[in-house]
Amino acid sequence: MITGQNYLGNKRSSKGEKTYKTFNPRLGITNEWTFYEATQEELEEAARLAQNAFISYRNISPARRAGFLRVIADEIEALGNTLIETYSKETALPEGRAKGERGRTVGQLRSFANALEDGSWVEASIDTAIPDRSPIPKPDLRKMLIPIGPVAVFGSSNFPLAYSTAGGDTASALAAGCPVIVKSHPMHAATGELVASAIISAAKKTDMPNGVFSNLNSSGIEVGQALVKHPGITAVGFTGSIKGGTALYKLANERAEPIPVFAEMGSVNPVLIFPSALSENGAYWANQYASSIMLGAGQFCTNPGLIFGVKGKSLDNFKTTLGKDIAALDPSCMLHPTIYDNYEKGKKEAVAQEGITQLNSPSSENPSYFAQQLVLSVSGKDFSQNPKLHQEVFGPFSIVVECESPEEIQDIIKELEGQLTGTVLGDSNELKTYSEVIDAMAQRVGRIIYNGVPTGVEVCPSMVHGGPFPASSDSRFTAVGTNAIKRWVRPFSYQNWPNEQLPDALKNENPLNILRFVNGSYTDSKI
Amino acid sequence: MITGQNYLGNKRSSKGEKTYKTFNPRLGITNEWTFYEATQEELEEAARLAQNAFISYRNISPARRAGFLRVIADEIEALGNTLIETYSKETALPEGRAKGERGRTVGQLRSFANALEDGSWVEASIDTAIPDRSPIPKPDLRKMLIPIGPVAVFGSSNFPLAYSTAGGDTASALAAGCPVIVKSHPMHAATGELVASAIISAAKKTDMPNGVFSNLNSSGIEVGQALVKHPGITAVGFTGSIKGGTALYKLANERAEPIPVFAEMGSVNPVLIFPSALSENGAYWANQYASSIMLGAGQFCTNPGLIFGVKGKSLDNFKTTLGKDIAALDPSCMLHPTIYDNYEKGKKEAVAQEGITQLNSPSSENPSYFAQQLVLSVSGKDFSQNPKLHQEVFGPFSIVVECESPEEIQDIIKELEGQLTGTVLGDSNELKTYSEVIDAMAQRVGRIIYNGVPTGVEVCPSMVHGGPFPASSDSRFTAVGTNAIKRWVRPFSYQNWPNEQLPDALKNENPLNILRFVNGSYTDSKI
Repeated sequence: MITGQNYLGNKRSSKGEKTYKTFNPRLGITNEWTFYEATQEELEEAARLAQNAFISYRNISPARRAGFLRVIADEIEALGNTLIETYSKETALPEGRAKGERGRTVGQLRSFANALEDGSWVEASIDTAIPDRSPIPKPDLRKMLIPIGPVAVFGSSNFPLAYSTAGGDTASALAAGCPVIVKSHPMHAATGELVASAIISAAKKTDMPNGVFSNLNSSGIEVGQALVKHPGITAVGFTGSIKGGTALYKLANERAEPIPVFAEMGSVNPVLIFPSALSENGAYWANQYASSIMLGAGQFCTNPGLIFGVKGKSLDNFKTTLGKDIAALDPSCMLHPTIYDNYEKGKKEAVAQEGITQLNSPSSENPSYFAQQLVLSVSGKDFSQNPKLHQEVFGPFSIVVECESPEEIQDIIKELEGQLTGTVLGDSNELKTYSEVIDAMAQRVGRIIYNGVPTGVEVCPSMVHGGPFPASSDSRFTAVGTNAIKRWVRPFSYQNWPNEQLPDALKNENPLNILRFVNGSYTDSKI
Repeated sequence: MITGQNYLGNKRSSKGEKTYKTFNPRLGITNEWTFYEATQEELEEAARLAQNAFISYRNISPARRAGFLRVIADEIEALGNTLIETYSKETALPEGRAKGERGRTVGQLRSFANALEDGSWVEASIDTAIPDRSPIPKPDLRKMLIPIGPVAVFGSSNFPLAYSTAGGDTASALAAGCPVIVKSHPMHAATGELVASAIISAAKKTDMPNGVFSNLNSSGIEVGQALVKHPGITAVGFTGSIKGGTALYKLANERAEPIPVFAEMGSVNPVLIFPSALSENGAYWANQYASSIMLGAGQFCTNPGLIFGVKGKSLDNFKTTLGKDIAALDPSCMLHPTIYDNYEKGKKEAVAQEGITQLNSPSSENPSYFAQQLVLSVSGKDFSQNPKLHQEVFGPFSIVVECESPEEIQDIIKELEGQLTGTVLGDSNELKTYSEVIDAMAQRVGRIIYNGVPTGVEVCPSMVHGGPFPASSDSRFTAVGTNAIKRWVRPFSYQNWPNEQLPDALKNENPLNILRFVNGSYTDSKI
């Protein structure tokens, strides 16, 4: 049941006077539920509970934490069609997408449970004592990763499940041993409340401390700001706009005790299309990219927003086919009127720039909030001189940048803002011929793709979802995959600590049977 | 030969008009050399060279980088007594300490060379493709750590070798594949120049790109600030004061493209002395702590500045013995008049606080710049109400905090600023009895020590030197040990990349024979 209330730990609460509703863009109506904006008092209570929960939660065994994550996944699945229908009412995304994203969300929770059960992720490292070392004895030192403390999570608009209430940030923080306070996304507050209720139910069933999870409603920016400034919060996970992420990042750094913020922000995901790909497979790639640009109404952070090629007949053909292929696809409804308005505004601004050519003619007859796709082309020179064209236009939009030479591509790429992904289309000889261009692109991205499209982010240990600023606020971490847990932990050393008082991961007996770095070698043996 | 010039890559340069000299505190005279403050133009040139060097340096094999580090160590040793004498002239530290620190410095360089040769530190992770997976194929994803870019290093006053020009920050950054620009510490500019010449000589001998290392002289704050703001710098390593570190951290976050700063700053290193330690070994620990407080004129970031015990006869005895034992030790000369003046000022302020008792009577007859030791005691109540007493007094100084109960210790510890270390003196039963106090302390520190002193930071993989703010600016990293390299690298993924074009660490054949995480298991096998 959707109540519109906040969760302060296990307790529902609605002390605020400010209320808001979510919107169904497909029907053009507000949804039935009323949400109560969290008050400062409620936020304080959630933070107090989280700090208190951390004292016991950090010492709960990895196996029990894994059990908690698995039950969260089960409880989310048990929400059944209610979740799917609510999701669609608040996002206009189709049922198939809702189910796919639910699968991804529970898959993520279970993959962190697997990592906890495997146990080696704590990077246990042991250097045993050498008491008779000269001139001074060598102490016994043992190190492992421990949780950092309560984490504030800001979910994204475009992944109401996989990167929101029980998404990658929450799953990784809970796995790490950190309590979580979610600032609910105002566009899908009901979906958020349902998922929050699943987490609370799992916390009760697995006997987790009250306060290990809270969910705060908020339609403005005040609750989020207060959360980031609260002394009880020790780290922040954010997925959203550059403006929003940067504001929180700055706020976190102005605190008396600054805290780390991992913000996954914007990206235009450059694509390099080399001569062989244009001449041999130009039509194929045009078709693939038309689909990739249109996927989910272009509302993916890995949407290909820039395609670089060297000008000539092959590129002309590619542009023509891309324009034709994308025009043939059906527009779909965007997540929210605000996102639709921003998309329209962004397109208008882009089209008004110097040297722009449109590759398709947008139809003017669309249902409300349906995103009319647009692809443009521009010369390398006009592109490089105009920072406006470097900005992400969130929606089914892309720009083909026509360069004079591979050198011009390299010069532009080198100066490009940080990105989540970079893609190369070509043959393996071209990887050698253009190794300098590719190397320059690698410096600006977190993941590099060969002969594919950037949309589709596989959840696996080898995934990097992050990149140089502003793709993310700290390129040294990933938001997707089991290594996302590393954002919420810190290394901690025990010196000459009695064996029986050490955590299991560091005991001589290696009771968890994990891989450890012992006196310079990796081993799962006892000491 | 000490020229007083900057190194802009391999070239010496002295375009500035501003000059300065270093000081010999033991003799009370300025040293003979004149140093030329780097100009903005020289800084720009160093940054340009570093950016350029990064293009090739990042692609140089780990084996060659290891060779470079080993030759740096050899070249530092080849400086022989000139280095030791210069070090002593600029720091007043004795020859034994100079030699010990040189050993630590070359040892660090060689340990990073070992890590590079072992190769597994890149955290290679491989998830192979599943082309027939339903509903969509699984791509091949391969991830490893890659260097982040040019790093600016700010050395410390108190470790002119081990945490300065070729210290832990420089060694780890060069190991990672990042060029380094050192902002030379003005108190030991000649020592810095000698070490810089060793690095440049090694870079030439091993054919490293020009610009892989630069050394900029600076007596003020402008060069450092300009360096942190320079767009070519991608990360900062700093060891020094909270004020200095925080200023640079804020500057780095205000950049258009913020960059990570790892600042190792102040710490007072709390010690908990439990009843059994007081009653059974009180005199022993008083003696040990008198020495630890005095070590290196108290100029260690791990100096024990706070000792907590429950009041009573045993603690009274401990205080008396500590006062007597420390009074019996000979003061030594501090690093610099400025450091001496700050120490005197800090002591004076501390003594003037409410409820302070002096445990020893400082002698007024000391050679210039010799640090007269001082230990104080104060009640838990007066301590907790007075933030002044929480501040580090850099020198041979400590405060015994007399609490009413273990609960009061816990309450104080919970609110304490972040620290590098925490120490527990007691028996193993007390570790259980007081587990809550110890757990509370663990939340505020990076390393916890049982029955020992916090001074002495072993260089090994299991060491953590870092901690919650302000001990360091990011508790998720360590400044000491091979894991210090993790500050200068970021994860990077290749998707569907042709095997022969992958870096060796990710090739099917595993030519480097490293440990990799392949499809969910650790292995050093081929694929």
